[in-house]
Amino acid sequence: MKALVFDVFGTLVDWRSSIAQQAQKTLSPLGFETDWSAFADAWRNEYQPAMERVRSGQRSFCKLDVLHRDNLDIVLSRMGWESVNEATRSHLTLAWHHLDAWPEVNQALLRLRKKYLLAPCSNGHIALMVNLARHNNWHWDAITGAEIAKDYKPQAVVYQASADALGCLWAETTMVAAHSSDLEAAKEAGLQTAFIARPNECGVGLGESKATTPVDFEASDLNNLADLLEC
Amino acid sequence: MKALVFDVFGTLVDWRSSIAQQAQKTLSPLGFETDWSAFADAWRNEYQPAMERVRSGQRSFCKLDVLHRDNLDIVLSRMGWESVNEATRSHLTLAWHHLDAWPEVNQALLRLRKKYLLAPCSNGHIALMVNLARHNNWHWDAITGAEIAKDYKPQAVVYQASADALGCLWAETTMVAAHSSDLEAAKEAGLQTAFIARPNECGVGLGESKATTPVDFEASDLNNLADLLEC
Repeated sequence: MKALVFDVFGTLVDWRSSIAQQAQKTLSPLGFETDWSAFADAWRNEYQPAMERVRSGQRSFCKLDVLHRDNLDIVLSRMGWESVNEATRSHLTLAWHHLDAWPEVNQALLRLRKKYLLAPCSNGHIALMVNLARHNNWHWDAITGAEIAKDYKPQAVVYQASADALGCLWAETTMVAAHSSDLEAAKEAGLQTAFIARPNECGVGLGESKATTPVDFEASDLNNLADLLEC
Repeated sequence: MKALVFDVFGTLVDWRSSIAQQAQKTLSPLGFETDWSAFADAWRNEYQPAMERVRSGQRSFCKLDVLHRDNLDIVLSRMGWESVNEATRSHLTLAWHHLDAWPEVNQALLRLRKKYLLAPCSNGHIALMVNLARHNNWHWDAITGAEIAKDYKPQAVVYQASADALGCLWAETTMVAAHSSDLEAAKEAGLQTAFIARPNECGVGLGESKATTPVDFEASDLNNLADLLEC
């Protein structure tokens, strides 16, 4: 094994709390009030359907900012918040560039980097990953993922393009994620897989605590993965 | 200005000394002897013609390792060193992944990174850039350049794709290089430009000490650029 490539939303960062906080901070002063965690969930719920239109060929590949913006418009419309102006919508779309890491992530990435090449393999585009890395002080060897593959996970080409970009064989590369569906696809694409438990990703008890697909490594958090890999 | 993107071969690393040393280390024990700096020059001289076949559409885009290997075969053949075996040729091709930085580069990159996003914009592919960064202990925000643009500099798309990937406008991005031709193309592509003097790149006095094209910044070395940019 030479490289680890990472899912980011949910696996490395707590998107739900971060989006809820940023949405409240942006919209509450304008007089809008709601359950902000539910707002984050509603926005995130449009994520897979939007990508599916790209994966199915119905829409050509675009950066995730474009889908996040479209999805925000859908959510605001559904809530009857049509009066939120263009500048506010643009600003809020960039909230996904500033998500906080789960508590143990930074220390664990430092440990893992001593032994392996590290890169995100996310559906987020390069600029979004660059900004998340700056926000959380991460040191990636490269930014891989959807933008270099020009398609979205779980398409096999995204995992394979990440390994290829790092100059590693697929079997020398381990996909790290908190979602069994992501890991199942990565394994089918020829990579090794490591599951990270995030039992509270979508709210208390609303995340995966155990892999529901066979994986090569199963860890309670990212430091535990570093333990298992003897880093 | 938000981002700096860098030429690497010659601008950040001393390819000539590094290749001469590694070629000698690999081939001398096998009984081959020559002027190793001249060997490095001969190998490098095949670089532009090989890329030109890609730029002109005569050959489809490939990673630079493939061109470096083809070029090595040409040089070995010309020297009558046909007996160098496959494993040695493959090993030597990877010498370009382990080139030493010019002395001030590491300190200067740390200074520049405090104020700007930093990425290579090289004709080297992602894996080569990843290995050079590990070899020299650099921290890039992303790896941009030929591989994400699927073409070679000085094609405009390579410079533009680097800025796009970082989420910056072309005019917010500065191309940093020791070669006037690279900077002339970057400026035509819409980027700002910074020249770094490397008067000894190809041997004593055989490098550019002054830009021969209009540039936005002209520096004696990378620390001097950091001074000019008040980093």
